[in-house]
Amino acid sequence: MAVARVARGSLSRAIANRASERDLIIRGPVPNLGRPHSCENVHSFSGSSFLHSEPENASKLGHMNQERGIVMSPRVRFPSGAAMAALEESDAEEMHESPGLEETKPGEKPRVVVLGTGWAACRFLKGIDTRLYDVVCISPRNHMVFTPLLASTCVGTLEFRSVAEPVGRIQPALSTDPKSYFFLASCTGLDTDKHEVYCEAVANGGTAQEPHRFKVAYDKLVIAAGAEPLTFGIKGVKEHAYFLREVNHAQEIRKKLLLNLMLSENPGISEEEKNRLLHCVVIGGGPTGVEFSGELSDFILKDVRERFAHVKDYIRVTLIEANEILSSFDVGLRQYAINHFNKCGVRLMRGVVKEVGPKKILLNDGTEVPYGLLVWSTGVGPSQFVKSLNLPKSSGGRIGVDEWLRVPSVEDVFALGDCAGFLERTGRPVLPALAQVAEREGKFLMELFNRIGKQNGGKAFSAGGMNLGDPFVYRHLGSMASVGNYKALVDLRQSKDASGISHAGFVSWLIWRSAYLTRVVSWRNRFYVAVNWATTLVFGRDNSRIG
Amino acid sequence: MAVARVARGSLSRAIANRASERDLIIRGPVPNLGRPHSCENVHSFSGSSFLHSEPENASKLGHMNQERGIVMSPRVRFPSGAAMAALEESDAEEMHESPGLEETKPGEKPRVVVLGTGWAACRFLKGIDTRLYDVVCISPRNHMVFTPLLASTCVGTLEFRSVAEPVGRIQPALSTDPKSYFFLASCTGLDTDKHEVYCEAVANGGTAQEPHRFKVAYDKLVIAAGAEPLTFGIKGVKEHAYFLREVNHAQEIRKKLLLNLMLSENPGISEEEKNRLLHCVVIGGGPTGVEFSGELSDFILKDVRERFAHVKDYIRVTLIEANEILSSFDVGLRQYAINHFNKCGVRLMRGVVKEVGPKKILLNDGTEVPYGLLVWSTGVGPSQFVKSLNLPKSSGGRIGVDEWLRVPSVEDVFALGDCAGFLERTGRPVLPALAQVAEREGKFLMELFNRIGKQNGGKAFSAGGMNLGDPFVYRHLGSMASVGNYKALVDLRQSKDASGISHAGFVSWLIWRSAYLTRVVSWRNRFYVAVNWATTLVFGRDNSRIG
Repeated sequence: MAVARVARGSLSRAIANRASERDLIIRGPVPNLGRPHSCENVHSFSGSSFLHSEPENASKLGHMNQERGIVMSPRVRFPSGAAMAALEESDAEEMHESPGLEETKPGEKPRVVVLGTGWAACRFLKGIDTRLYDVVCISPRNHMVFTPLLASTCVGTLEFRSVAEPVGRIQPALSTDPKSYFFLASCTGLDTDKHEVYCEAVANGGTAQEPHRFKVAYDKLVIAAGAEPLTFGIKGVKEHAYFLREVNHAQEIRKKLLLNLMLSENPGISEEEKNRLLHCVVIGGGPTGVEFSGELSDFILKDVRERFAHVKDYIRVTLIEANEILSSFDVGLRQYAINHFNKCGVRLMRGVVKEVGPKKILLNDGTEVPYGLLVWSTGVGPSQFVKSLNLPKSSGGRIGVDEWLRVPSVEDVFALGDCAGFLERTGRPVLPALAQVAEREGKFLMELFNRIGKQNGGKAFSAGGMNLGDPFVYRHLGSMASVGNYKALVDLRQSKDASGISHAGFVSWLIWRSAYLTRVVSWRNRFYVAVNWATTLVFGRDNSRIG
Repeated sequence: MAVARVARGSLSRAIANRASERDLIIRGPVPNLGRPHSCENVHSFSGSSFLHSEPENASKLGHMNQERGIVMSPRVRFPSGAAMAALEESDAEEMHESPGLEETKPGEKPRVVVLGTGWAACRFLKGIDTRLYDVVCISPRNHMVFTPLLASTCVGTLEFRSVAEPVGRIQPALSTDPKSYFFLASCTGLDTDKHEVYCEAVANGGTAQEPHRFKVAYDKLVIAAGAEPLTFGIKGVKEHAYFLREVNHAQEIRKKLLLNLMLSENPGISEEEKNRLLHCVVIGGGPTGVEFSGELSDFILKDVRERFAHVKDYIRVTLIEANEILSSFDVGLRQYAINHFNKCGVRLMRGVVKEVGPKKILLNDGTEVPYGLLVWSTGVGPSQFVKSLNLPKSSGGRIGVDEWLRVPSVEDVFALGDCAGFLERTGRPVLPALAQVAEREGKFLMELFNRIGKQNGGKAFSAGGMNLGDPFVYRHLGSMASVGNYKALVDLRQSKDASGISHAGFVSWLIWRSAYLTRVVSWRNRFYVAVNWATTLVFGRDNSRIG
């Protein structure tokens, strides 16, 4: 079924632009923005000896150059120049001493190193021909998350494991081939000349030997390390708000929601405190925020009424958005969603968040909004890791790529998904941070790799001048969003301004469900999602609070 | 199906005795022993103003008296005596100021307060006649855990939610009746004269108002607050070992196991370190320890071979027991288990743990055992909460009860499950800490309550002289344990020395599975357990590491 919206970040197209504007503000020495998507140990960046050149050095030395939107890496332009001397002295030794996978020898299969386990990386991994390549996947997360259904897990409509797919199932060679691996680690830097990536293993109880560092040499590098939630530098967001990008985010949200429900039943809780505890606030009216609000409203109208009857009249949902909700959707669908939310009690509020405290949000106009649960879903921007790379950048601060998803000016490096964007010189817009885009790019690159692999272009420096086939072209298949109570929106227009079919209601909801069911990656999870939906219908949602 | 072993703690009968011996050693000012079963905020005990009298005070004042095994409470024996003066001055005010549920008025239904959500409490709750009683359940956990299947969740054979049953489903009145409640809180003390219990709500982000304290007046009090893992005061156990009593324990074990498997694949890990990381050690050869070892061995022989092929030859399981494994089982079954473990690579080791370090265990004979995962399963003993209560005690330090599960010398207080034991004067042995026992006691007490409730004996001080019916008699229905690879042990003898049917092998495994399937509390979870088993068979175990 090809209709799936498969939307990720949120706000779809609008975000790519907004991100780029904001990026100018939050660039430079940036505070750690929330939990990063691909870098569990991001705090170690500043002290990491694997970083070859820091932006400060680069600009100080005058080698950072902007050519039609391309920020060139000094490392790349002056591979053996004096600029590197200072850095090399201190870093090179430790780097060389790191254990790791050495470069492949003649006669061995070329090694593709993939950074990430999101939509782009996993689609690439799924189809890559392991007779042509050894594959190494590096990520701090050993599974892919079926993000469009993540909101449903927060209230128990779906179970957590139904939306998580172990990467070893997606590409079995990672577990079984003698020279293919999955490494549970964060990539902290790379040397495009040496064709090496530098990694830090995920911590295991903080022993003296940690972090365990190693390097991996590549013939081809595929960067699909994702993005991280945008907080626009607003104070208190990362301390008090929950994001909704990983399975453990959903687990935390569920725990908090159930905790608030139960604590508000305790004797001696004031009316005001009950109202606060049970006020669920969602910031950001993109598909993720809308779907989460819809799920919450379903949960309240059905399960809370039955299972938390003592406090059922206190719980409320407010969705705060600075502009319009679902801005990329057809205007009719948008109005449908607004009417639907009005009917089922989700309050829509226009506002811009100024500051977030432990118990209330302060808006720009001075309004204070007390809350018990705060979910932050205002789209994504470049991660610390991506920012740290001295590679060409697209507008919005993503890794810049050409029409074949190659990173120009370096050899054998490709980037795709939320961390990559077309360079300005390609004349193409930066694509929105959607699963649909990432998946399509993963498929394109996988086919490209299989093609050049067959022509013996897999090894480092061997694909020069090879015919890469047609460039990547993105054709938007449409967007979908459920709004709760068996209703969904389906927008099949190819772009915001095009005309085309759009539909809202129960039939759309059926399309939404069946589209997602067929797109869930494995048969195991397809089966589990169906079973979860059926049991939720029969028995209601599970509300045990574990952990 | 009545055959279920439904064993909990471990070591069954042996433990009750061992616990009582050890208790003499670990009594007094005891360090916080692991994560307590029923008291999430146990650290707050020492400073809690709700504790009416502390053991030190009691013995100092000479009121602690031992009569045929009964430790009498000074509070109980001298309800208005001078001994209480000092305590009352400081505590009474705060107690009285606490918000809460006041005593029931004439004409209102009597209120039963149940502490705990384990086997005993939930069986009681399930059957209590809510037309006769208002019910208040107080526990830091809002669900019952189907403990016999908990070991299966650690390796992904079953999902976590399949073994957790929300208490609101077990007794819907808790969620819906206007005067019945579930409070997510720990009980910190009680006043048997005033018929009040004192509680602290589970923490919610540590705000200034915390901990939120309240009191609940009862007509009848049912203490089923469980026990906590025994560590025998061995250094390092609570810091480094995992227990296996709660769903989140199983989650932690699964995360650690998968983490160790993945980290050992990273480049540059020495052979010695791989061997350490992948050495899973289980301490305690009771049913829980044996079943967990069996599940681990299944996981290794099937899933690790396929999904972690690079390190499959490094992973090992060692089960360490001071005496014999499965000491309560028939000698033939025990030998079967030993042979089975020898065949499938689980190493059995006799030893007594002296100290536990972050990476190795030191045994009494000086042997050092390096480990990557350590699961501690040596049975249970009285919790801090039970120790703090000035109620009569049985041997082993449990709350002492008579044949009707009443706590003598106080009115309207009952105790059952792992936290209760027959007083010596009853001439009965303290029953083992088994789910089977707890469930039977819960059923007995529920029937007793429904009987006296019908005779208007539900209100406080109103059941005196009422005919309570036959006393509780425990008839052991047999024990079961799975050992992995579709093999289980079924021992239908009524006691250790009796003769009777015992069987081991595949047929026993079928009995084991079907017995448990029918005993899982709800249809929802029965369905999920069956679905989990079927998908594990078809697709293997899930190995995504979440969180």
